[in-house]
Amino acid sequence: MATDKSPGVVNLSEKLGTMDKHWAPRIVAAINDYHVKLVRVLGEFTWHRHDDTDELFLVLDGQLCIEMRDRSVQLQTGELFVVPRGTEHRPVAEQECQLLLLEPAGTVNTGDKPGALTHKASWD
Amino acid sequence: MATDKSPGVVNLSEKLGTMDKHWAPRIVAAINDYHVKLVRVLGEFTWHRHDDTDELFLVLDGQLCIEMRDRSVQLQTGELFVVPRGTEHRPVAEQECQLLLLEPAGTVNTGDKPGALTHKASWD
Repeated sequence: MATDKSPGVVNLSEKLGTMDKHWAPRIVAAINDYHVKLVRVLGEFTWHRHDDTDELFLVLDGQLCIEMRDRSVQLQTGELFVVPRGTEHRPVAEQECQLLLLEPAGTVNTGDKPGALTHKASWD
Repeated sequence: MATDKSPGVVNLSEKLGTMDKHWAPRIVAAINDYHVKLVRVLGEFTWHRHDDTDELFLVLDGQLCIEMRDRSVQLQTGELFVVPRGTEHRPVAEQECQLLLLEPAGTVNTGDKPGALTHKASWD
């Protein structure tokens, strides 16, 4: 149950508790023209890239592998990584993982590879 | 002791473990022209505002009060808040608190009120 908080304060774990679909990011904050998003992930995402922007991944709970064409990085809870713009990547989570993402507003989750996993992030 | 991680992966608590000065942010990631910073805080900061940018505060450990002229917000571990551009604010931590900040590169911690607490954020 949500606690009584000041307007504008976002509790990350409470928000994640309202989300049940994988690979379906929710926007939780706007900083100028950037969005902070939360997402639950499980399994393999789509190989894709963002030609116009870097993308930050912060693992809030779990483990995430970010595969790139020339290497992979393994992220644990409390670790972050920035995928540089134009870099093909595929997030993979063997078990469910909770992420915070940061990128410009309007960034599409599947980048240059729209498909079944494309999800327009929303605030609710 | 640092574990063996992939290049570019930042472990937030390990990085904070190398920082001992209060109100002295370190840059840990760049996303386009934005910086993610970590900072340890204790006590009262300076009243100030940023006329050109919003500023995101995420509490990684501890509690933070962000005083504004018309209200205050209390943040617990795992909670975030965005101070809108142009809004006078003063962060206050009664006990030591660890924060993640997000703002455009070059944003000065004391905004329009340079002084003893002004600290140019650096990567190391």
